[in-house]
Amino acid sequence: MKFTIEQIATMLGGEIEGDGSAEVNRLSKIQDAEKGSIAFLSNPKYESHLYETRASAVIVSKDFQPKSSLETTLIKVEDPYSSFSRLLEEYSRMLHSQKQGVEEPAFIGENTSTGEGIYRGAFSYVGSGVSIGQNVKIYPHAFVGDNTTIGDNCIIYAGAKIYEGTEIGDNCVIHSGAVIGSDGFGFAPQPDGSYKAIPQLGKVKLENNVSIGANTTIDCATFDSDYTLIKEGVKLDNLIQIAHNVEIGEHTVIAAQAGVSGSSKIGNNCMIGGQVGVSGHVEIIGKTSIAAQSGIMKSPKDEGAVLIGSPAFDHKQYLKCYVVFRKLPDLDQRLKELEEKVLNLRTV
Amino acid sequence: MKFTIEQIATMLGGEIEGDGSAEVNRLSKIQDAEKGSIAFLSNPKYESHLYETRASAVIVSKDFQPKSSLETTLIKVEDPYSSFSRLLEEYSRMLHSQKQGVEEPAFIGENTSTGEGIYRGAFSYVGSGVSIGQNVKIYPHAFVGDNTTIGDNCIIYAGAKIYEGTEIGDNCVIHSGAVIGSDGFGFAPQPDGSYKAIPQLGKVKLENNVSIGANTTIDCATFDSDYTLIKEGVKLDNLIQIAHNVEIGEHTVIAAQAGVSGSSKIGNNCMIGGQVGVSGHVEIIGKTSIAAQSGIMKSPKDEGAVLIGSPAFDHKQYLKCYVVFRKLPDLDQRLKELEEKVLNLRTV
Amino acid sequence: MKFTIEQIATMLGGEIEGDGSAEVNRLSKIQDAEKGSIAFLSNPKYESHLYETRASAVIVSKDFQPKSSLETTLIKVEDPYSSFSRLLEEYSRMLHSQKQGVEEPAFIGENTSTGEGIYRGAFSYVGSGVSIGQNVKIYPHAFVGDNTTIGDNCIIYAGAKIYEGTEIGDNCVIHSGAVIGSDGFGFAPQPDGSYKAIPQLGKVKLENNVSIGANTTIDCATFDSDYTLIKEGVKLDNLIQIAHNVEIGEHTVIAAQAGVSGSSKIGNNCMIGGQVGVSGHVEIIGKTSIAAQSGIMKSPKDEGAVLIGSPAFDHKQYLKCYVVFRKLPDLDQRLKELEEKVLNLRTV
Repeated sequence: MKFTIEQIATMLGGEIEGDGSAEVNRLSKIQDAEKGSIAFLSNPKYESHLYETRASAVIVSKDFQPKSSLETTLIKVEDPYSSFSRLLEEYSRMLHSQKQGVEEPAFIGENTSTGEGIYRGAFSYVGSGVSIGQNVKIYPHAFVGDNTTIGDNCIIYAGAKIYEGTEIGDNCVIHSGAVIGSDGFGFAPQPDGSYKAIPQLGKVKLENNVSIGANTTIDCATFDSDYTLIKEGVKLDNLIQIAHNVEIGEHTVIAAQAGVSGSSKIGNNCMIGGQVGVSGHVEIIGKTSIAAQSGIMKSPKDEGAVLIGSPAFDHKQYLKCYVVFRKLPDLDQRLKELEEKVLNLRTV
Repeated sequence: MKFTIEQIATMLGGEIEGDGSAEVNRLSKIQDAEKGSIAFLSNPKYESHLYETRASAVIVSKDFQPKSSLETTLIKVEDPYSSFSRLLEEYSRMLHSQKQGVEEPAFIGENTSTGEGIYRGAFSYVGSGVSIGQNVKIYPHAFVGDNTTIGDNCIIYAGAKIYEGTEIGDNCVIHSGAVIGSDGFGFAPQPDGSYKAIPQLGKVKLENNVSIGANTTIDCATFDSDYTLIKEGVKLDNLIQIAHNVEIGEHTVIAAQAGVSGSSKIGNNCMIGGQVGVSGHVEIIGKTSIAAQSGIMKSPKDEGAVLIGSPAFDHKQYLKCYVVFRKLPDLDQRLKELEEKVLNLRTV
Repeated sequence: MKFTIEQIATMLGGEIEGDGSAEVNRLSKIQDAEKGSIAFLSNPKYESHLYETRASAVIVSKDFQPKSSLETTLIKVEDPYSSFSRLLEEYSRMLHSQKQGVEEPAFIGENTSTGEGIYRGAFSYVGSGVSIGQNVKIYPHAFVGDNTTIGDNCIIYAGAKIYEGTEIGDNCVIHSGAVIGSDGFGFAPQPDGSYKAIPQLGKVKLENNVSIGANTTIDCATFDSDYTLIKEGVKLDNLIQIAHNVEIGEHTVIAAQAGVSGSSKIGNNCMIGGQVGVSGHVEIIGKTSIAAQSGIMKSPKDEGAVLIGSPAFDHKQYLKCYVVFRKLPDLDQRLKELEEKVLNLRTV
């Protein structure tokens, strides 16, 4: 997609200094930009790049005055960073909205409704009794099981698998290889030492504005009437495990390879680091931060705690302990010496 | 699927108290049940829910006498919990057995045999020389490579990938995105610092009653005649890594995101927690329990050990150590004070 | 595939002792070999197996003299191990080169070019504007997004997902379920506590001879002109997370379930263990080794370091600390006793 600098300036409500007729077709960092790129300058410490950039246009603050002559065209706006972000979003939105219509062969079951602007890629599978909203993009090899509902403006990337009965809100993004609704890991031990599967009949519900990373797995709830619940605005990174009956609170963000065990509830606005493990049946209070690789077995009592370690506790205290851990051989040696001294004292 | 309460009572060999003609179509917890649900009451501490439930029917013990009048219908049985479990299983079984036949397009290679009751979903791929048993369900986008064998009553969920030559027993369940038979991670270092792949020509064998979670990966063995072996009744959760030439003993259960490195052997009836790592070439004795996030570098000597930590050791001992770890700064301080005291004593 | 022992001896430039006319069709370990197998004997400690093996042929050193009569045929070569490796490679190469042509239905977009010897499996998807080299094998359900480039001799296994614009060199292997180019995990916090996705417009580049394990995920870079870069000869195991803007240096090897956070750079010839986590914006110097489950927050200063722990430090020092950690309750007790003794001394 190509735009003239003038078109972009109009969109951003900015003023042009220089040639507005040139075309741009990519968004770049100012130091890496090539001809055809648009970049931005927000932080004054990067100003020197402006005089060397090969970008066709640079978005700057309306108050900005260059210190020497420029090859590039300036677009002057109120806030360069947020203007550039807006541009990024528009660009990204347009890239996705290009995909429309149905590539054959694509499978669609009975009694399934799809809204306007849909894309169903080749080899995508949409089961029976499914309800799909407006502007939904279902990429190739995506699987949408029977009786699933999907809201507006969702993107289901190539090869994402959504088991039957899943409920997905508006503006959700599900990346490739994510699995939503697989059986919870529930097995009843038998007298002979073997295990019998406990049927998992519940569902997964994603509220609005949820993002699910590549190859992340979310198991369904056990009971027919229950949900594994991912609330409004939750962002899950790649390769995360969410077990059955878990609830993740609004606007909680979880980094890659973390895992949450069965029936745990995580509050709103938590930040959970990569490779963290949360035990089963734990309730974590809102606004808790958990450092990468920690293991959580119980919730902190107050909001705003920062935890680390396995089992995790307050991160400041942990780091003090770790400092001493690193000199434990020395500590051991000091204790030995002191024991000898005291022994000598007593025998004196 | 709908059933009358009478049909269910007959199936369970139970007696009805109340209206047996109403229909039920879901199984719920007594506190969450709606009209059309069937629930159960086993633990007396939940009895109060019985008088408020909106369930159409509740399974209770044959000796149970309600303390006040009820809106719901009772089904009286010997053991309410196991009756409800049986119902769950039947329901689950019927849900799956509904899927039958072949949805087009589905790919099937030459010299491949499939048993009765098969479901091959649209875009499923079954290669050449494959042998598939009775009542096998192969969901859309599942890939079954050439010369694979699959026993009876297996379910291969959407998008599971089974490399060629894999051997799968009866009653196995493989969830979406699981990869069975990918190349083992074997690379020979070269004099120039680069690596050369060691061809991985072995296979993966799953015995009967094995369950593989979503996005779990199991690598094939290195040698042509060798197997990565997952024995009878093993249950693997989601996102687990099983490396080449590993052997997992009968009825061992492994939680999500654990990993077992190459050539390790895990005994029967072990329980391995989430995010555990097992080093290569380790043999773990049967009935070992390993706590989440632990790292295992050698086996305990006796059956029944419970391990924790990385490197892991006895969990009771570990927890005692961790208690002292948490007060290490205090320990360090005490030692310092004592050193001073002793110094003072000596100079007195 | 079957070969006579003579054909193999000719290929290896070896001499036959015994019957060269028998056919072999598999490569086995000497102790597991059956009729029709070829095995090798390199380490003298396994020589006893030679007199009992059922292998049809065994590759031995040209100097080797059996101590008693043999049922098997010998192929005498300069270096039995490397001859066997060469055989393994040839065999593996032939297995893959058998796959040729296009299985229908397979999707291919506009303006896409494919080289000779291509295999496109049923239900594989190759988008528009894609450029694919010679002898590339694209297995069923693989997804190759628009404007991707793939070099010669690459294998894209079943169900691997390659987002649009990815650049892949020659001789790369991408296993099932791997996801290349998913959105980086970038979200800007909003004043109301919610998060807004930062569009991820960069790409992923794999240089030559890169191997990507099953269900591994590699996110694209943030900026249009940036790459997440996996350099020459890198080998990634299964279930690894590589975040946006990461760079992995040449011939670095990473074991399963490790994760590298955004914008970190790992040097050449590093060895990173399973389940390791690397924080964001870290630069790790070349030839660093990191033990399994470690957490890396900063780079060692010198090449050749071996790190362990979380946060990680020198492994020898760590293990000394861990030895004392394991006797911390004892240390605590000794300190208590000493405190009492000193108290007694002073009060005497």
